[in-house]
Amino acid sequence: MAITHVERMRVQWVDTDASGLIHYTAALRYFEVAEHGLMRRLFEGQPVAGVMMPRVHVEADYKAALRYPDEFDCRAAVAAVGTSSVTYAYEIRRLGGPLCILGRIVAVAIDGGGRPVPLPASMREIFERAR
Amino acid sequence: MAITHVERMRVQWVDTDASGLIHYTAALRYFEVAEHGLMRRLFEGQPVAGVMMPRVHVEADYKAALRYPDEFDCRAAVAAVGTSSVTYAYEIRRLGGPLCILGRIVAVAIDGGGRPVPLPASMREIFERAR
Amino acid sequence: MAITHVERMRVQWVDTDASGLIHYTAALRYFEVAEHGLMRRLFEGQPVAGVMMPRVHVEADYKAALRYPDEFDCRAAVAAVGTSSVTYAYEIRRLGGPLCILGRIVAVAIDGGGRPVPLPASMREIFERAR
Amino acid sequence: MAITHVERMRVQWVDTDASGLIHYTAALRYFEVAEHGLMRRLFEGQPVAGVMMPRVHVEADYKAALRYPDEFDCRAAVAAVGTSSVTYAYEIRRLGGPLCILGRIVAVAIDGGGRPVPLPASMREIFERAR
Repeated sequence: MAITHVERMRVQWVDTDASGLIHYTAALRYFEVAEHGLMRRLFEGQPVAGVMMPRVHVEADYKAALRYPDEFDCRAAVAAVGTSSVTYAYEIRRLGGPLCILGRIVAVAIDGGGRPVPLPASMREIFERAR
Repeated sequence: MAITHVERMRVQWVDTDASGLIHYTAALRYFEVAEHGLMRRLFEGQPVAGVMMPRVHVEADYKAALRYPDEFDCRAAVAAVGTSSVTYAYEIRRLGGPLCILGRIVAVAIDGGGRPVPLPASMREIFERAR
Repeated sequence: MAITHVERMRVQWVDTDASGLIHYTAALRYFEVAEHGLMRRLFEGQPVAGVMMPRVHVEADYKAALRYPDEFDCRAAVAAVGTSSVTYAYEIRRLGGPLCILGRIVAVAIDGGGRPVPLPASMREIFERAR
Repeated sequence: MAITHVERMRVQWVDTDASGLIHYTAALRYFEVAEHGLMRRLFEGQPVAGVMMPRVHVEADYKAALRYPDEFDCRAAVAAVGTSSVTYAYEIRRLGGPLCILGRIVAVAIDGGGRPVPLPASMREIFERAR
C-alpha cells in the first residue's frame, strides 16, 4: 500500500535569492525534510539498520514559481525498490495553487568501502510495503 | 568551439553534514559558481539581454565522495542550445582524484508572464559559439 | 504587553555539519523564522509600511548542543525600540531540554539612500505595544 | 607578530535573498572561510591537537551593502587568547569599496563531556604568536 508523507512548510526568507523567487537548491532541502519525515514514519520502532545510503542521483523539475512567504505541501513517497537502491519521488504544491516542483532521488546502500550492498531484508520489506 | 569554464574551489565546512561528507545540495551550489563564471566569460562586454532564464530541470549524479577540506575543479559548459532553452553540463573532479559529481541543468528564457520565449539572437549566437 | 512568538521546529539534516551538531549559521536561520512569524502576527491586517529595515548588528550565544533530529522552540520578541531601530531577542530551547542558544539582532529603518530614518509612527506603535 | 589571513571571494548568487543583497548569514560563512584559511596557515605541519573548539559567541556588524557579483576581501585574525578560549576578528571589505562587515567569534576548547578545558600548550603558543 502506497504511503505518502506530507510536510506543510513555508518558504523562508533565506530560501529566496535576488530574483525574488526561491533559489533552486531550496527545493532539494524541502525534498529532504519530507523524505526524513517519511523515514521516521516508516522506521519508527524498528531497530536502526546501520546501513549508509548516500544519494547517487538527484533530479528536479521546476513548473511554477515559489516566493516568500508561500505555504506549500511537500510530499515524499517510495517510488521504486531495487536490490541495493531505493528511489524516492517528491512533489511540491503551493497551498491553493499549482504543482510547483517534482523530484526524484535514488539512494544506494553501501558498505564501509563505498561498494553497493543489498538492502538488509527488514529494510527492504519496509520500503516494499510503503511503495 | 567548445568553451569550458573551470573554477578551482575547496569544500568548506558549511558544505558538510553530519555524515562527514558534503551535503548533496553543495554540488548544486558549486555548479552555479562555475556556470556564473562561464556566463561572465561569454557575455563580458556584451549588452545585457534582460531576459529571465529560470532553471526548469536539474540533475546530478554522485560518483565519489567529497569531504572538507578537499580541493576540486568544477567545470561548466554549454551542452545544448534550443529555441528558448540552454542546457549546461557540469563536472566536479577532486584534485589528484577521481570524477566526483556530474550535472546537467536546463534553463528556459521566459517573458514577464512566465511563458517561454525564443532566445534573443545575440544570446543564442554566443551560446552556439560556446557549445 | 510583551508578545513572544514561538515556532516549534526540528533540526534538519542540512543544518548539521561534519561535527555532528548544527552549523553555527543554522541558529540565525531559526531566529529569522521566528522573527518573521512574530512580524506576521504583529502586522497582520496593517498596511505595509514599505520601509526597509536591514540588520545592522547580530549576535548569538551558544550554550548547549543541538543535533539532528532534535525538536526545539525558537522564541522571538521585541526587546527594544529606538528612534529608527528595533532590537529583537531570540531564545532556542530543546524540547524537554536546556536552553541552547540566545540571540539579539538590531534592525534599522533606512531610506532609499541607505540613511537611517525614524520608524513610521504606526510601525513604532506596533513595536512598542509588542515590547 | 599579528598574522592576518585574507581570502579574496565573490558574492555568489546563492548568497543573496529577495532584498537583492546578501542574506545576513552569508557574512558568517565568509568569516568561516577566512578563519579556516588562517587555521591552515597557523597549524600547517603541526600535529593536530584533537581538541574540539565549538563557537560560543558570534557577532557581526553590517556597515555597507554587498551584492552579487561583488568581489571582496575577508580578513581573519586572532584577536585574543584566553585560558580555554580564542577570539577571532573578521573584516569584509569590498574591492575598491568601503568596509562592509565586521565580526568577532569566540571559540572554547572543551572535553568529551562539553566542559571547558585549557588550550593545549602547543596550540596556545601558536595562537599567541599569531595575535
